[in-house]
Amino acid sequence: MDLHNFFSAKNIAIIGVSRESKKVGHVILRNFVDSNYEGNIFIINPNAEEILGRKSYKSILEIKDRIDLAVISVPAAFVLKTVEECGKKKIKSIIIVTSGFSEVGNSSLEGKLAKLLKKYKIRCIGPNCLGVFDGHTRLDTLFLPRYRLTRPKQGGISFIVQSGAVGSTILDVSTQQGYGCSKFISYGNALNTDESDLLEYLGQDENTKVICMYIEGIKDGKKFLRIAKAVTRKKPVIVIKGGLTEKGGKATMSHTGSLAGKAEIYLGAFKQSNIIHVNSLEEMFEAAKILEKSLRPKGNKVQIITNGGGYGILASDALVNNNLEFAELSNKIKKELKKILPPLAIVDNPMDLIGDATAERYKIAIDACLQDDDVDILLVIALYQTPLLSTDIVDIITEANDFHKKPIVVVSAGAEFTEVLSKSLEENSIPTFMFPENAVRAVKHLVEYYKRR
Amino acid sequence: MDLHNFFSAKNIAIIGVSRESKKVGHVILRNFVDSNYEGNIFIINPNAEEILGRKSYKSILEIKDRIDLAVISVPAAFVLKTVEECGKKKIKSIIIVTSGFSEVGNSSLEGKLAKLLKKYKIRCIGPNCLGVFDGHTRLDTLFLPRYRLTRPKQGGISFIVQSGAVGSTILDVSTQQGYGCSKFISYGNALNTDESDLLEYLGQDENTKVICMYIEGIKDGKKFLRIAKAVTRKKPVIVIKGGLTEKGGKATMSHTGSLAGKAEIYLGAFKQSNIIHVNSLEEMFEAAKILEKSLRPKGNKVQIITNGGGYGILASDALVNNNLEFAELSNKIKKELKKILPPLAIVDNPMDLIGDATAERYKIAIDACLQDDDVDILLVIALYQTPLLSTDIVDIITEANDFHKKPIVVVSAGAEFTEVLSKSLEENSIPTFMFPENAVRAVKHLVEYYKRR
Repeated sequence: MDLHNFFSAKNIAIIGVSRESKKVGHVILRNFVDSNYEGNIFIINPNAEEILGRKSYKSILEIKDRIDLAVISVPAAFVLKTVEECGKKKIKSIIIVTSGFSEVGNSSLEGKLAKLLKKYKIRCIGPNCLGVFDGHTRLDTLFLPRYRLTRPKQGGISFIVQSGAVGSTILDVSTQQGYGCSKFISYGNALNTDESDLLEYLGQDENTKVICMYIEGIKDGKKFLRIAKAVTRKKPVIVIKGGLTEKGGKATMSHTGSLAGKAEIYLGAFKQSNIIHVNSLEEMFEAAKILEKSLRPKGNKVQIITNGGGYGILASDALVNNNLEFAELSNKIKKELKKILPPLAIVDNPMDLIGDATAERYKIAIDACLQDDDVDILLVIALYQTPLLSTDIVDIITEANDFHKKPIVVVSAGAEFTEVLSKSLEENSIPTFMFPENAVRAVKHLVEYYKRR
Repeated sequence: MDLHNFFSAKNIAIIGVSRESKKVGHVILRNFVDSNYEGNIFIINPNAEEILGRKSYKSILEIKDRIDLAVISVPAAFVLKTVEECGKKKIKSIIIVTSGFSEVGNSSLEGKLAKLLKKYKIRCIGPNCLGVFDGHTRLDTLFLPRYRLTRPKQGGISFIVQSGAVGSTILDVSTQQGYGCSKFISYGNALNTDESDLLEYLGQDENTKVICMYIEGIKDGKKFLRIAKAVTRKKPVIVIKGGLTEKGGKATMSHTGSLAGKAEIYLGAFKQSNIIHVNSLEEMFEAAKILEKSLRPKGNKVQIITNGGGYGILASDALVNNNLEFAELSNKIKKELKKILPPLAIVDNPMDLIGDATAERYKIAIDACLQDDDVDILLVIALYQTPLLSTDIVDIITEANDFHKKPIVVVSAGAEFTEVLSKSLEENSIPTFMFPENAVRAVKHLVEYYKRR
């Protein structure tokens, strides 16, 4: 079934919009108003004439226009009645943010809801979820205020999350770190749309370059495996699994009611389907960044260029620890570089351009290395604390990236000055990292994903 | 030998101050001027009358006042003559930032310099180094401009670094992350002051709560072991060792000429002397933060409190993976909490206060957990994306921290709103982390250090 509607519906009804500004339905409406979403919003509250200057309808059945998507935030006790009306109104897509179903032991209510959805052939996200956010269309059903949960800019990373709290922090952190978002879905109890359906849909979504998932359990293992195998042939899927340990698994039972299952089974399934499994949220973001921005590397041979010897050494240690190989420049290129670079520079791997390196010296080294057939990936360490390194370095790295079609990853550690340059590079599709160990761990994921694909 | 002078000298001579604003000696002078260091600065340039409005002397011997510290940035060829004059002037402490000695193969020049220092009984930091920075006195010999390399605020973390580039990024990142610095030393070729001397000195320094070291090699293993054992009895020492792998070790030879040595020998020595060994710069900063701010924990039992189930699960997995134990609340406390907290809250470990948790609900949970004898450390996950959690949470956590005398660590992931609250907590001595995995890794270092001590 196509889920496109959930992200670009033309006529949207929000059912259960309170006049009180802190209530869920009100916040959802407020966010639609603030986001200038290109679509028509209809609001339903039987006890109001108008809210935020918009006409309020008594019931969905009162609306004459076709409704493409309903967002339901009425109390749990009114959900069945509301869905029944949606069915009669021939709405085919609904998001139920309301909680109070199986996650609190009310399986009977959830069962009745499932039957009703089946009867009217309604595709539903939720209940007990945040719903969706689209970085491109800006459709946004998240009932959290924007001063608390900032919304990221548009981009290529999509998220599927089983936990609302993990989801909301993921979006907020994305803004903070400058990551671009395609689609975000918090799917809650997954009544008739589960993680596999969403994965399949995002696999076909053109705006989505990389898919990140936070899951505690998988509804249907075989289905997931089949879909994951197909999707990872097209684009990378990164998964963080909550509850891999016994203690953590116990907690997933009380949280989403998920049977966490044995760690080995999950890890085996991830490996089989070329899913990138990560152990932390930080690692997830770093992998997503490199996989969104970088081209496919030919192999796993990395050349390091640095203007700080210590950073070259730490990066070398990290390469070894992550099973990556060192590129070996041809003697011809080494000879040429030795002629041009200052005598104290070290033409090797790591290549140390030393502390007085200028942007021009970087240009010479970067171009030479990228021309060398043995170099699959270039790790450029550019420490901006030295005054001789001008900001031209941004253009130099960007041009090399556009021209040579090999992945370039940049490491720069520092405060404001560094942050400005790193941000510029990221806007030009170069993944940047603060520390060499994090950069190399991300490179490992890039290499392994394409090697297995 | 006391190194106090290097951080609080009254009369300081900068020898080799160019009139050109980009030259090393000029930048050093400029930084002394900008920092308003409380001391008298004398500058020496035989070819100038005055620089930056200050009288320039032809030679150190022309100065009538006593000189406590000389900072030498003349070219390598003039260093011996300059040091000879310093000797005659009875200066006992000098920093030689000039490079061009053993690190570029000029061991003969370095040998002559060593003899001269011995002859005049001069204590020397360098050559080939950045020198020192004191976060409290603001004495600052770093020849890097402040718009590129920001200087951190005063605090309790000290750094000993063998690599200038690693050192300069460490300071710059410290500012960016809000870490407070006590003393920083880039010691270069360690001619007569090596990493062990500096470690011993910082062990006695009252402002220093935690010592971080970046080393590529150790000059004298036995001396280091003896001193490290003594210092770690008083305060934590965190070490990142460059060149632990064979490839990385090869690179240390070209960089600082250090014989990297076998990894097992280093790791064994670190363990023997209760040094906290870390594998990345990020891990170093995180360990430094928790060890600077947190009290000694009684044991390794952690209680997790969260308002987001998924974060509680990820933190649980991290506890298991880092060999930490779960605290088990007494039945009495559990019973009381169940009475007060809403029915959907989960009174367990992790304790889930659920999405609508208020600051008041946190207060009840935090106080109850800290009262429980089985809780050694409290991990508070506070996700600020939900509007009901007011900013009172900062005061509540701070007061609990002051009252209960048990380590509290806070996890909050997000953008500006989160950053403001995290910063407030850190200013009140509560270590905060973006992601649970990083927080728990830091807690592990806290526990292990005190357990072994």
